[in-house]
Amino acid sequence: MTQKCVCFDGEGVLWHAGEPIPGASEVINEITKLGYRPIVITNNASKSVEQYYQRFQKSGYNSFEMSDVITSAAAVGTYLQKIGLDKPNRKIFVIGTAGFVSQLRLQHLQVITTADFDGIEFHTMELDPSVCAVVVGSSEEFTYRHLAIATRFVIENDAILISANPDNSYPYNPKVLVPGAHALSVSISVASGRQPKIVGKPDPKVFEAIPGYKDIDIKNSWMIGDRLNTDIAFAKNVGLKSILVLTGVSKRDECEALSFEEKPDFVCEDLAACLETIKANQ
Amino acid sequence: MTQKCVCFDGEGVLWHAGEPIPGASEVINEITKLGYRPIVITNNASKSVEQYYQRFQKSGYNSFEMSDVITSAAAVGTYLQKIGLDKPNRKIFVIGTAGFVSQLRLQHLQVITTADFDGIEFHTMELDPSVCAVVVGSSEEFTYRHLAIATRFVIENDAILISANPDNSYPYNPKVLVPGAHALSVSISVASGRQPKIVGKPDPKVFEAIPGYKDIDIKNSWMIGDRLNTDIAFAKNVGLKSILVLTGVSKRDECEALSFEEKPDFVCEDLAACLETIKANQ
Repeated sequence: MTQKCVCFDGEGVLWHAGEPIPGASEVINEITKLGYRPIVITNNASKSVEQYYQRFQKSGYNSFEMSDVITSAAAVGTYLQKIGLDKPNRKIFVIGTAGFVSQLRLQHLQVITTADFDGIEFHTMELDPSVCAVVVGSSEEFTYRHLAIATRFVIENDAILISANPDNSYPYNPKVLVPGAHALSVSISVASGRQPKIVGKPDPKVFEAIPGYKDIDIKNSWMIGDRLNTDIAFAKNVGLKSILVLTGVSKRDECEALSFEEKPDFVCEDLAACLETIKANQ
Repeated sequence: MTQKCVCFDGEGVLWHAGEPIPGASEVINEITKLGYRPIVITNNASKSVEQYYQRFQKSGYNSFEMSDVITSAAAVGTYLQKIGLDKPNRKIFVIGTAGFVSQLRLQHLQVITTADFDGIEFHTMELDPSVCAVVVGSSEEFTYRHLAIATRFVIENDAILISANPDNSYPYNPKVLVPGAHALSVSISVASGRQPKIVGKPDPKVFEAIPGYKDIDIKNSWMIGDRLNTDIAFAKNVGLKSILVLTGVSKRDECEALSFEEKPDFVCEDLAACLETIKANQ
């Protein structure tokens, strides 16, 4: 049996700086009544799936199951499992928030962090040869020490380098941009001479992190997002119908610079308009 | 009156990890007797010119004057002066060592660092509009806070971004590479969307940081260095005769991949052989 879905981005679509966008809850519940499974796919790797799920419950988004929430952290975990790094004696060095680390541990990955090297000189310490991946999410705790240890694992252990999302920066508020995960991973990339693999939208493999993704009726499903280079590009890469909603980062006039293949199928002012668009184009 | 010079790189040519290379002192004194002005041009921005000069004095390199020592920090200072950033009400936000900061202050630049924002929330702090450059040297003190403040100055003040050298990494010892200044500046570059201007060899403008550079007889002067991509490329960019000395980073067989224009004029095992080469090719 196949199921139709509507995938939502988080920040700029369902919430702003942690606060739910007014009316979002009603739209999601309506989407569910129309027979669609609502799914959230966020490139934010700072919280675990459970933390997001609890946020939804509190915000009145009660049509979501826990398995309907896909974070970039979960997508990284799924990718690492797929390439066999959940086997014994495979360790992952992670730069990221506590939520990111806990999500990867929930997915049965052996995670180590700089806390495991407290008091140890990073220039000369002996490297654990079982560390075979370095994973980088955005982290305000990032220091030269993180950078230097990560660089050593990539060069000396030939560890793969993974950026948890492609964000160069993200808006802290409408006026201030702060550095994102890719700004951190690029420093390790430059120091080590190794290109990072970027997980997170627009990488279509994120779709495979959705539990039950094989049953999804892709061509009758939708992606609603606020960023052309991640959300809409992801929809195009997967084959979902796409709506750019104007409550976040990308603006209507930015669509003009895009080729026909890159343009969103629809552009809507807000989620209520998205609902009408979906109803009219089922 | 023109003068002939022999320019030396520092690490890998005159010293290794702070220890003078045996025989270097004698070779420099001999170079001086042949009528050449010895000059050190190092991409290391971590010490002030005075700190280097004192190191030379202690190592028995007594043919050097203080004005014969050019660090990447000094070259950055000269560049900032040249573009008028030593004027009143122009400030420079610097990420780097105490030696780097003191060198720029010696050159009459108004330097601020993250210490000037202690206890202030970096997401929301009001930015001093007189900060018009962000300068990045290698620094083990580097944190997300440095990165985020630098990113805000570059985006919101339209400050120019300067990397004090092009080093992605540098050898801490023969087995361990640690991240260099360019690995830090690239993270600010990615977060802000602004390309850094890279000062330091191979940029020929470093030559203009030598006091009295206009009197130098370039075509009868030499550069001795251990790195093809910085030292030898610098010699080529300036028009100096070049010797790759094999006591540091680059190896003889790496020259084979280079075009005729990029190849060093000579390759020597050590400084003693460089001296013989210069004598034979005056």
